[in-house]
Amino acid sequence: MPDHGFHEFTLDDIEALAVGAWVLGTGGGGSPYLGLLNMRQLYAQGHRVQLMPPEALADDDLVAVVSNMGAPLVGQERLTDSANIARAVTLMEEYLGREFRAVMSVEIGGNNGIQPLMAAAHLGKPVVDADAMGRAYPEAQMTSFAVGDLQPWPLTLVDPRGVEGIVAKVPTWKWMERLSRKMCVETGSTAATCKAPRTGAEVKRWGIPNTTTQAMALGRAIRLAQREHRDPIQAILDAEDGRMLFRGKVTDLARRTTEGFLRGTTTLEGLDEWRGHGFALAFQNEWAVGWLDGVARVMTPDLICVLDSVTGEAIGTETLRYGQRVTVIALRAPAVFLTPRGLDFVGPRAFGYDLDFVSVFAA
Amino acid sequence: MPDHGFHEFTLDDIEALAVGAWVLGTGGGGSPYLGLLNMRQLYAQGHRVQLMPPEALADDDLVAVVSNMGAPLVGQERLTDSANIARAVTLMEEYLGREFRAVMSVEIGGNNGIQPLMAAAHLGKPVVDADAMGRAYPEAQMTSFAVGDLQPWPLTLVDPRGVEGIVAKVPTWKWMERLSRKMCVETGSTAATCKAPRTGAEVKRWGIPNTTTQAMALGRAIRLAQREHRDPIQAILDAEDGRMLFRGKVTDLARRTTEGFLRGTTTLEGLDEWRGHGFALAFQNEWAVGWLDGVARVMTPDLICVLDSVTGEAIGTETLRYGQRVTVIALRAPAVFLTPRGLDFVGPRAFGYDLDFVSVFAA
Repeated sequence: MPDHGFHEFTLDDIEALAVGAWVLGTGGGGSPYLGLLNMRQLYAQGHRVQLMPPEALADDDLVAVVSNMGAPLVGQERLTDSANIARAVTLMEEYLGREFRAVMSVEIGGNNGIQPLMAAAHLGKPVVDADAMGRAYPEAQMTSFAVGDLQPWPLTLVDPRGVEGIVAKVPTWKWMERLSRKMCVETGSTAATCKAPRTGAEVKRWGIPNTTTQAMALGRAIRLAQREHRDPIQAILDAEDGRMLFRGKVTDLARRTTEGFLRGTTTLEGLDEWRGHGFALAFQNEWAVGWLDGVARVMTPDLICVLDSVTGEAIGTETLRYGQRVTVIALRAPAVFLTPRGLDFVGPRAFGYDLDFVSVFAA
Repeated sequence: MPDHGFHEFTLDDIEALAVGAWVLGTGGGGSPYLGLLNMRQLYAQGHRVQLMPPEALADDDLVAVVSNMGAPLVGQERLTDSANIARAVTLMEEYLGREFRAVMSVEIGGNNGIQPLMAAAHLGKPVVDADAMGRAYPEAQMTSFAVGDLQPWPLTLVDPRGVEGIVAKVPTWKWMERLSRKMCVETGSTAATCKAPRTGAEVKRWGIPNTTTQAMALGRAIRLAQREHRDPIQAILDAEDGRMLFRGKVTDLARRTTEGFLRGTTTLEGLDEWRGHGFALAFQNEWAVGWLDGVARVMTPDLICVLDSVTGEAIGTETLRYGQRVTVIALRAPAVFLTPRGLDFVGPRAFGYDLDFVSVFAA
């Protein structure tokens, strides 16, 4: 296998990835700071991780698709340990009786953008520069692989107390979500998972390419703007061709960990040119819908990002607090989710909102 | 392998097994009538099943330990299909990469006394004359195998819609119960399961031997008494050296399907020599504790059996109805559950009752 196009992550790359992935997390995927701490330690121990372009995969290579599953708030108490995600991958290898060529994230957003690097460091495998969401989404069927009607099973699930489960077969992606979610709830609404293995051909056809590179570039733009005392939020909007939606402070927050998710709502009171206006957001791990003065203004699959108004860094649904000064922006969704079939999986109705999808980027 | 001690079940044996296993079910294990209908059909199609004495197992033979798991009431709507339990066994064979020598029940009580015969008919394997409860119990850790500290994992779980799960590893028997129960709840509080495989040596050391034969003999005694117009309840007490506890009619019944179990209470108003007295029973799938006039009279692990006062046939926690004339008797628990360690697993405190175990057979 020629190594052209491979790139060894520097620690600075990973610091940038942590910042960029948190923005793409749209509130979810868990705080990447915890994964970053793991990676700093793994690099200090001499581990190094390679980034592999998807086109370097052979069609019949097998790729491990990983994520930590559950309610992000739990991750603030049960901290990330890189060994867990590596174990989910080796459990899958044991189950399949076959070795993986590489590791990738099911979602580039949040700490799940770092999870494949942690597994890769332990296992000596490269990380594929792709994911299946281009952001973070809460449920198993909310992926480009599901839109592509690829096989949903098997899945391995690992809890560090020595609990290991396998979803061996399911009739639908929704059943994968149902069964794995209940297992995850029982281990405390957090678990390391290795999703249905994908062939190189499947990753090249249905993966969302280059999202690790995208997240690193985004993180670098934010950090550079911070260092140069430019507006980091403007740097994000420029880098991603995003839309400014609202600036304000958090005046209310209702948040509950329920059925394996972090659900709730928050309201913002306008500042600056938004003074006198209000903005409300609803979330299921990730921000799902935002209302300006009671009218739906932005909705999934558009990426809704809530940022610290000063640093430009993302704020997760589990780290949002009363009184924070925040800015809401929207970034563009991957094209795979904008088709009628894509919207069936991740549009507002998939989250229970009786809204026709209208993108802030339309017209 | 010499076939000495093997016995081919006649259909009459299976009819007797259904009657006897229902009494030993102590209210749980599900109505065996549904398994009996399956076996009549399988026998009509030409299938035959062999009963194998445990001592005929080689030490390194592997035995599939099966049961249907869940809340018995669900079994009155989602009827028994013999293919499900057979699939749980073949899924385990696929997972282990090894073939089973034979099949046995984790619990002889109720329909789970028939489940291994259904699997055996499909798979052409014998049924071992043993179980791990000598009755029925609601939870995974309530077995002689758990008392013997044998390995709790793996477990396979099958739902006929094509949902297949595996508990690959757990740190304790209680974790096996926790994870498998949640999976079972998600498939509708009923699922076919193949429990942790047991070696021949383990079955011979920790299995409760000859319980299939015991259930058939008990069923034959009841049916003979019915035919000869003798009191079938007296026939049970004679066959098993049991104790008569109460006769009355059902005056109240509170029953709910919750968290994968059928839980509730019932009260009886005394008839005949018990006129003027009341009896209350609490259940979690199986009858757990009985109170005579408010004082604990009988408790697990003594077998509490509620019988139709006329036919002597058992009544399950899911088939009990207001107004039924019933008789409550107690049968003797297997010795393995009467040790301090055994009582930790199946004594009244294991069911949440702050009672010291006192057997009705004591003194």
